[in-house]
Amino acid sequence: MRVLGESYRTIWFDAVEEAVAILDQTALPDALRVARISSLDGMCEAIRTMRVRGAPLIGVSAAFGLWLAMREDPTDEGLDAAVRALTATRPTAVNLRWAVDLAARAVRGALAEERPALARAFAEGLAEMDVETCRAIGARGAAALRERFAHKLEGTLEILTHCNAGWLATVDVGTALAPVYALHDAGYGVHVWVSETRPRDQGLLTEWELRQHGVPCTLLADNAAGHVLASGRVDACIVGSDRTTRRGDVCNKIGTYLKALAAAAHGVPFYVALPTSTIDLSLEDGAAIPIEERSQNELFGGSAEARGERHAWNPAFDVTPAKLVTALITERGVVPATESAITALFAR
Amino acid sequence: MRVLGESYRTIWFDAVEEAVAILDQTALPDALRVARISSLDGMCEAIRTMRVRGAPLIGVSAAFGLWLAMREDPTDEGLDAAVRALTATRPTAVNLRWAVDLAARAVRGALAEERPALARAFAEGLAEMDVETCRAIGARGAAALRERFAHKLEGTLEILTHCNAGWLATVDVGTALAPVYALHDAGYGVHVWVSETRPRDQGLLTEWELRQHGVPCTLLADNAAGHVLASGRVDACIVGSDRTTRRGDVCNKIGTYLKALAAAAHGVPFYVALPTSTIDLSLEDGAAIPIEERSQNELFGGSAEARGERHAWNPAFDVTPAKLVTALITERGVVPATESAITALFAR
Repeated sequence: MRVLGESYRTIWFDAVEEAVAILDQTALPDALRVARISSLDGMCEAIRTMRVRGAPLIGVSAAFGLWLAMREDPTDEGLDAAVRALTATRPTAVNLRWAVDLAARAVRGALAEERPALARAFAEGLAEMDVETCRAIGARGAAALRERFAHKLEGTLEILTHCNAGWLATVDVGTALAPVYALHDAGYGVHVWVSETRPRDQGLLTEWELRQHGVPCTLLADNAAGHVLASGRVDACIVGSDRTTRRGDVCNKIGTYLKALAAAAHGVPFYVALPTSTIDLSLEDGAAIPIEERSQNELFGGSAEARGERHAWNPAFDVTPAKLVTALITERGVVPATESAITALFAR
Repeated sequence: MRVLGESYRTIWFDAVEEAVAILDQTALPDALRVARISSLDGMCEAIRTMRVRGAPLIGVSAAFGLWLAMREDPTDEGLDAAVRALTATRPTAVNLRWAVDLAARAVRGALAEERPALARAFAEGLAEMDVETCRAIGARGAAALRERFAHKLEGTLEILTHCNAGWLATVDVGTALAPVYALHDAGYGVHVWVSETRPRDQGLLTEWELRQHGVPCTLLADNAAGHVLASGRVDACIVGSDRTTRRGDVCNKIGTYLKALAAAAHGVPFYVALPTSTIDLSLEDGAAIPIEERSQNELFGGSAEARGERHAWNPAFDVTPAKLVTALITERGVVPATESAITALFAR
């Protein structure tokens, strides 16, 4: 995507520094800062502290992390340790594990001296694949919205989203925001309601990237979602997903479930846009998804000192049951959140 | 209530300064600061900027404001202007208007020279009445909870609340927290889940006052309410109300509605604790309640500069339909949120 006239991705191989370059998302939206990561430890830290974030992006980041690991120690022991370290960084997003497993499989059969180059090629390929996947999500989602909201698109289509599932959550293009960008770029009027997404405020990232792209948007306190839906100001909700079960239960950023409940109460369609790599066919019930609990200090700006004697509980995700999901927008098609439709996406 | 060994109310007549003393709630929980207000304009500003806040407390504050106004200009013109200025400060809480109307009626029949003393006596009486009302809400609410949760009270009763409807939202004792304090003081185990309540973070006031009183509590991001309810960690929700219609639709702090939806989805009872002075018998449907829209700068720490080019929408309240309310806890009884039960509260 373009920022101030320059094209950016969220992650890339920096050939000059022989390192992984990332947009440091803990600096955004206040500052556009490129950070270089040149060790496995550095990549684990970047994922854990959310300098890179978003299910698709942390998958690609982990693959790049495996390259850094192979450069440090290309032995089988080094590979196994890297797989363990990378998958332990964050527990909920299933495609972190998916990407690490694929990357490890790609290099395991090779000689130690071939592994670094192979791992880097794999990571770069995965990044390209992520962009293609997001483009397909955008095209399929935009087509579904054009069909359902033909009348509205003569004026302005009103979309509510949560957290950031835009290009900052992927390598480029985005998931939930990909259909929004596709419609906007095709000349349709789209306006996005963006919830802040406490405690990490990823809504500010969404607001920033939409504004960079010229898409009109309005921030809301997370609390305001029920009222904005009740007041008829929203045509459709679109969110991303960190893990979706084979029955269509959707795990996404904490607060997603509340929006889905309110959308259902007011008959507003609730779409989830996701690469099929975030579907976990091994799980049926959303209750089985491990929910990451992050530091309670995050509610106090990250500081234990600011927290003082206070206690907080900080689950990072929640589960929206399939019955509240209108459709899943994937790169392979827009399908209902049912077991038969989901398993059919993987049919050969 | 006691803070650091001292007894406090949120508002009182300061005989030495001949002024109204308030706990400045924009300084809490970081600092306990007593402010003196000695003019009508000062009181209007304090209500508008939420230095005093909470439906019951702003009613009493407005009554004290009428005293200050009568001291400045006890003529009929002065009285009319003060009524207009005070009722215009905040539109949603109906007992601001109720208190101002009662106070104005109390002084209108008197001679100009009698009006200041009469207005002050009325405000002090209203403050005492608020405390009594809150004590009754606490006793009746505690009895209802003891009856419904007899088994749970052998261990710990888990309560979820939103915003601040504690003693800081009243003159003393509180509304939603009054039953919590009553149970705690009677030796029962109670733990409270407190949502932050963006954008003004009144949850931090709730956390502070519960902790001062020794009631265990845990802060949550507003987004986490669905997950904490889905996970079975909550026995009952209790919130306050700024205005309740004759059919039982409840207007309260933005975000209340989302919690009510989630409570209903998981079979958790949802109580609303309120003085009957916040019931607006003139309205049937919650959709008719005027919803205050506050400055969009509140989403950016109150600063237009920090907001920059961003847009936000900041409704301060939402409406929870009666069907999601388990019962109303009032000083006159705990009743279902139905028109017949509500009008019966006012039967003579």
